[in-house]
Amino acid sequence: MDKHAIYSHQGLGGTSGIGHRCALILVDFVNGFVDFNQLGGPHIEAAADHTVELLAHFRAQRLPVVHTRVVFEEDGANHNIFALRVPALQKLTEHAPGSQIVPQLSPASGEWVIRKQSASAFFETGLAGWLLQRGVDTAVITGCTTSGCVRASVVDALQHNLRTIVISDCVGDRALEPHEANLFDMQQKYADVMRRDEFITQHQRLMARN
Amino acid sequence: MDKHAIYSHQGLGGTSGIGHRCALILVDFVNGFVDFNQLGGPHIEAAADHTVELLAHFRAQRLPVVHTRVVFEEDGANHNIFALRVPALQKLTEHAPGSQIVPQLSPASGEWVIRKQSASAFFETGLAGWLLQRGVDTAVITGCTTSGCVRASVVDALQHNLRTIVISDCVGDRALEPHEANLFDMQQKYADVMRRDEFITQHQRLMARN
Amino acid sequence: MDKHAIYSHQGLGGTSGIGHRCALILVDFVNGFVDFNQLGGPHIEAAADHTVELLAHFRAQRLPVVHTRVVFEEDGANHNIFALRVPALQKLTEHAPGSQIVPQLSPASGEWVIRKQSASAFFETGLAGWLLQRGVDTAVITGCTTSGCVRASVVDALQHNLRTIVISDCVGDRALEPHEANLFDMQQKYADVMRRDEFITQHQRLMARN
Amino acid sequence: MDKHAIYSHQGLGGTSGIGHRCALILVDFVNGFVDFNQLGGPHIEAAADHTVELLAHFRAQRLPVVHTRVVFEEDGANHNIFALRVPALQKLTEHAPGSQIVPQLSPASGEWVIRKQSASAFFETGLAGWLLQRGVDTAVITGCTTSGCVRASVVDALQHNLRTIVISDCVGDRALEPHEANLFDMQQKYADVMRRDEFITQHQRLMARN
Repeated sequence: MDKHAIYSHQGLGGTSGIGHRCALILVDFVNGFVDFNQLGGPHIEAAADHTVELLAHFRAQRLPVVHTRVVFEEDGANHNIFALRVPALQKLTEHAPGSQIVPQLSPASGEWVIRKQSASAFFETGLAGWLLQRGVDTAVITGCTTSGCVRASVVDALQHNLRTIVISDCVGDRALEPHEANLFDMQQKYADVMRRDEFITQHQRLMARN
Repeated sequence: MDKHAIYSHQGLGGTSGIGHRCALILVDFVNGFVDFNQLGGPHIEAAADHTVELLAHFRAQRLPVVHTRVVFEEDGANHNIFALRVPALQKLTEHAPGSQIVPQLSPASGEWVIRKQSASAFFETGLAGWLLQRGVDTAVITGCTTSGCVRASVVDALQHNLRTIVISDCVGDRALEPHEANLFDMQQKYADVMRRDEFITQHQRLMARN
Repeated sequence: MDKHAIYSHQGLGGTSGIGHRCALILVDFVNGFVDFNQLGGPHIEAAADHTVELLAHFRAQRLPVVHTRVVFEEDGANHNIFALRVPALQKLTEHAPGSQIVPQLSPASGEWVIRKQSASAFFETGLAGWLLQRGVDTAVITGCTTSGCVRASVVDALQHNLRTIVISDCVGDRALEPHEANLFDMQQKYADVMRRDEFITQHQRLMARN
Repeated sequence: MDKHAIYSHQGLGGTSGIGHRCALILVDFVNGFVDFNQLGGPHIEAAADHTVELLAHFRAQRLPVVHTRVVFEEDGANHNIFALRVPALQKLTEHAPGSQIVPQLSPASGEWVIRKQSASAFFETGLAGWLLQRGVDTAVITGCTTSGCVRASVVDALQHNLRTIVISDCVGDRALEPHEANLFDMQQKYADVMRRDEFITQHQRLMARN
């Protein structure tokens, strides 16, 4: 019996839909994750390029936008087990080129840029409260890597009780197989998965109705 | 270029090792997750059977043991977005047969049985503080499903700065493909993955040395 | 220079006001906290009696209501440092009379009853996400004790970015001096403090306007 | 009946003692909190001066030391309800003189300096996991203000299951009455309260024994 038949038999693969107010979360779109010699790859750069249009949509609607960067202290004071397991993370310090947001998605004034040290954009960052303050009920998630910080952020978005959307052509990974496997897991359990054009069309229709 | 070559080039796939004091975490080994007509499958029952020996090892060493169950209120007062997306979860109430720990892993007195409503055993459960109080630095994770609550718990164990071990023959899933894909992700990024016999042998060697 | 002059000079003592959607939080209104021989006193029983009218107001408006109880495991599996410091807490187990909600505030179906082991109603309970799911931006806090679990819950409500209201005649303490001192601290830093009649009047006026 | 008699009758006022490994937490010892025209007062400067000796003790023992600063974004991107209620907080930005650690307690390399936006040093900062990684079971808390960020940090330290010590002559406040009232609350419920000389003597005795 294949996985689709089992999941369908057990009632997974539902949808939570788009709620009343969306925020855009750009997870770790930094230079180090588009550079194959650091932690990235060309698939991630394509995802960043696709996200330009989505970011313009959120800005035009004046909806909340948040970016994350991985930033560790230069003197190692906050190196955690994650940074010890994946030493390349330790190079992502405040002023390192690798930890700067990619130029095509450069943050605008008032967009919050979170410094994080863990996989999830929500873990010990205050993001859930920031969204609550802004009346957000739906997290729209883009970034990299699909099988790493995106997946961890998606699980946490749901755990914090947000409707969660993953934009499939705005998330990227260093290899395609984990990218596909994680999109399957997220769709089945945690999030609605759709392309950016599908999201923008549905979102515009919903906003016109309100 | 295949995924193994890319990950190796970028320095993933490290190890964090076994620390000074381990705790065993049994994630959602409840009847509803070994029953194909609820949320489980035969692969999970095999994982539960393999865990009997590991649990005996932890009990013999008097090391902390914690079990989790998914438990929602009968009147729906705490149905979250997760329970709305996956309606089968709503049937896991305090006295439902599906939410009882499987008999072969029945909790002993003093082992904490956590009621949870989210994927991760750590999310809003107090587990991190319970482990801190007991001087634990290493989380040994078993249970189900590999691609769901186990993966979410493993990511959170690392995020809470625990060394994290996944016991590959003591975690199970409703389909094999996501099981394998998630073991790969966890090994590369978050946790050491080993069989129960490997863990017990290494752990006994380490304890004999101290 | 007295404390009022200093606080005023430095710009404390502001107000955050009532937002768009309120939830009522009843902190630890259980038998053990109205019983002087357990952890309570007569001032707390008066606060519980005053809360009956406020609870009726929230139920009439169909706004979210949440109760908390302190509940520890009978076998001590989750005794934390708090329970070791304050041994009377250990007696508050699932079926102990002392840990049941006082009869005049008995929970209705659909009102969530949180079991907690720490001071704050928010600490590792999932309350913040429950409020986010319900679109709540304002926490209205009652219960006991003012200088203990109420204060801790108020600080956390603000930290989670909720507008926070303390109802001064619906919170009680085992001694009056800490009650007064903590109302002062909360008003100056974290919450608006008002009597139940003031709150109900203001709230009705706001709702009529919308 | 006075408060001491009631608390004693109900078994409050216990002690949790000094554990195996202490960390020193310096809460918000920044220029803005020693300046009466920002958020401070002379009592806080005295507390900072007293902390110099305690910090030297921790450094000599090579025990973990962590500092906190309140830091908000200049463009207001992360202004929360706390910053809206207490506008003086908004001036504490990355490079503002008011948000720099006071010179007598200047952080050494490897001491972690946490940027925070809430009252508690633990709230969404990752501090609990940082302490867990370092095997800490006891939080020794100093800083300011006693009735504000110190109190909030002490409650959270206990909630995270740390033994918690407040050093009474190394915490300060903008007015003496809340300082005293909060030391009473903390001693009764959450923490051991002692002077720096008492702590150093007891700690040296314990370390000599191990």
